[in-house]
Amino acid sequence: MNINHITHSDCLALDQQDPLAALRQQFRLPAQMIYLDGNSLGAQPKAAFDRAQQVIQEEWGNDLITSWNKAGWFDLPSRLGNLLAPLIGAQAEEVVITDSTSINLFKAIAAALQIQAQQADGAQRKVIITERSNFPTDIYMAEGLTKWLDRGYQIHLIDSPEELTSAINQHTALVMLTHVNYRTGYLYDMAQVTALAHQHGALCLWDLAHSAGAVEVDLHQAQADFAVGCCYKYLNGGPGAPAFIWVPQRHQAQFHHPLTGWWGHAAPFAMQPNFQVTPNIRRALCGTQPIVSLAMIESGLQIFAQTSMSAIRQKSLALTDLFIQLVETRCARHQLGLVTPREHAKRGSHVSFTHEHAYAVIQALINRGVVGDYREPAIMRFGFTPLYTSFVDVWNAVDALSDILDNQLYDANIQRHAVT
Amino acid sequence: MNINHITHSDCLALDQQDPLAALRQQFRLPAQMIYLDGNSLGAQPKAAFDRAQQVIQEEWGNDLITSWNKAGWFDLPSRLGNLLAPLIGAQAEEVVITDSTSINLFKAIAAALQIQAQQADGAQRKVIITERSNFPTDIYMAEGLTKWLDRGYQIHLIDSPEELTSAINQHTALVMLTHVNYRTGYLYDMAQVTALAHQHGALCLWDLAHSAGAVEVDLHQAQADFAVGCCYKYLNGGPGAPAFIWVPQRHQAQFHHPLTGWWGHAAPFAMQPNFQVTPNIRRALCGTQPIVSLAMIESGLQIFAQTSMSAIRQKSLALTDLFIQLVETRCARHQLGLVTPREHAKRGSHVSFTHEHAYAVIQALINRGVVGDYREPAIMRFGFTPLYTSFVDVWNAVDALSDILDNQLYDANIQRHAVT
Repeated sequence: MNINHITHSDCLALDQQDPLAALRQQFRLPAQMIYLDGNSLGAQPKAAFDRAQQVIQEEWGNDLITSWNKAGWFDLPSRLGNLLAPLIGAQAEEVVITDSTSINLFKAIAAALQIQAQQADGAQRKVIITERSNFPTDIYMAEGLTKWLDRGYQIHLIDSPEELTSAINQHTALVMLTHVNYRTGYLYDMAQVTALAHQHGALCLWDLAHSAGAVEVDLHQAQADFAVGCCYKYLNGGPGAPAFIWVPQRHQAQFHHPLTGWWGHAAPFAMQPNFQVTPNIRRALCGTQPIVSLAMIESGLQIFAQTSMSAIRQKSLALTDLFIQLVETRCARHQLGLVTPREHAKRGSHVSFTHEHAYAVIQALINRGVVGDYREPAIMRFGFTPLYTSFVDVWNAVDALSDILDNQLYDANIQRHAVT
Repeated sequence: MNINHITHSDCLALDQQDPLAALRQQFRLPAQMIYLDGNSLGAQPKAAFDRAQQVIQEEWGNDLITSWNKAGWFDLPSRLGNLLAPLIGAQAEEVVITDSTSINLFKAIAAALQIQAQQADGAQRKVIITERSNFPTDIYMAEGLTKWLDRGYQIHLIDSPEELTSAINQHTALVMLTHVNYRTGYLYDMAQVTALAHQHGALCLWDLAHSAGAVEVDLHQAQADFAVGCCYKYLNGGPGAPAFIWVPQRHQAQFHHPLTGWWGHAAPFAMQPNFQVTPNIRRALCGTQPIVSLAMIESGLQIFAQTSMSAIRQKSLALTDLFIQLVETRCARHQLGLVTPREHAKRGSHVSFTHEHAYAVIQALINRGVVGDYREPAIMRFGFTPLYTSFVDVWNAVDALSDILDNQLYDANIQRHAVT
């Protein structure tokens, strides 16, 4: 393969050599679509529908209330958490799948601030550091919590990863970052940043929304303190599937948050009028979970169990390398700006380019069956999901992009739709 | 019908005259089961599976990311809220279906406390009044929030509805009650209690978990301030289906809570780093919702649209009257204690009896296909759901109960299972 002149045949050959290629058959993918938006909503594992049918018809329809025990509904958050754990370097009984990422952020931020407040220097630690370009809900949840606590907490927004070193100091209570930036695809060095935070006595909370199932994550090796993440992106759990929260064993005894619902009680069916927190990871739970949406997550996790995160990461980098290379050669005469780091160690599994008419070009691509998405400001974002994206998909996507740009096959005056 | 000697034929005749009888065909109910636990988990509307199939195969599987717009996923919480509104006396754009009841309680309690804190006498209003016998998560959520706020709020637990009058005073910030008690079936007079709260300057938050779809509720007529409730009980939305929260138009501008996620933002896709609350009912939203579990709620609501809450209430009272009457005549020589009020105005749609071996008797009933449930302490609970419970069901249930009691067909030494 000539790296400066990659052909369609080269991509076909890459697919033939791809050890993950067969996994694509386990997903339902529309025949005429090249889906490069699995970083926003993962594709459907075919088994998910069978699982939903089992839950709806048998467990709900036939067995009704008995399914809380018999079908293990009540244990689903922790049972599925245990299946997810190996993908992120977590141990058993450290992860639950529950609620939304936003709600789980709230729990983790609250717990972290309380742990810090109880330290000898707690009164001086009033700053939460995060990025201005973080996914907004992460910032909003910190804002909501600290405003309500009204104890002088401040949110310090950094404008680039380089600012972290000077930002973290003895006043930092918590460093809260998204491991892979939703817009740029920038990948933080989790171990390095966590160590930096710890050197200054700060705790570190990682949002794995764009990492889990996409890049190799080893929370324990990085000595991370808390993590949350999303199950409907690379994990293919289904639209709006409940999210996850990880609390390592070493922090569980001090993990307290205000959302003390009955599912986090030590004896939820004893119906006691006072809250007694359960000693295990289920203390991160609050109320009753949406069982059908929750159960389908297992179908996605079962596909991951057939491979490894290192194999997935290897293919992810090959896909994103190929995409960048093809775009930069075949669309060289257009004003595309690569936003995503070229360096492997700093790149997640999606690639973003700026273009003056980014929104219009994305719409034109979607109309041709090449589904990426648009993000403010002026960013075209393309997600590569090694379980089902092929190298020929990459070729065909760039082929469509170059055609649209070369021949101006987009409506530069199109108005942006309000949603997604 | 001789009220002192009701026969199986009488019950058959009642079914033949029942205007709601035909609706039962729209539910999937196991042939050999008499399901009297719809107050815990509602039965499955047959249409729910078709709806799930549409969401999973077409909207997720085929249309993928475009379904956030095209299939209206993003609007589901408010669209379904509008369908639910008429069942509880709410107006359009006042209800969203989202998150769990516990999480929604947290939002409503927080908003109520903040509204009170901003009143001239706010500093003196530090008490939340609720019942010791309230469903525990309601108390736990108030406990979690007030403990975190650490501003001197207290939770005053009353031990009977009669204590309300003396408990509510100028220090009361919020009266938080479950409209129908989950254990006893006691139904509060919502208008009367709300008026009492308002006379003393307190706000009133109602949990409609055991009311919505079961009894007539008119939130506006009662001048209630806030309400939350459950969609997986009488509303038949599916296991763990997202819950609802109601904020009347008159309170929406002041409705603020700490769970400020991106779905409550005025411009969620503008990706701004600061939270700007949306002016409408969607400010009660937080993060992304579990779409499959959420979407199925519509199938339950569509059955309600074919009748009226007054017709449902009329049948509910007839069913519970019949059950009480039959149990008290046919099981007269056993030590059963009626916990549920006889007075219609004070009775929800389930009936509870105490018995020394309540747990064992319930298990024996379940083994015979008569599904009620057990609640601490020593309570047998039977839910009557007018959309699918027949009068002959009631007859057969009591027939089984009397046989089990008369012949001691239960294992008095059985150990209680931990869950449900």
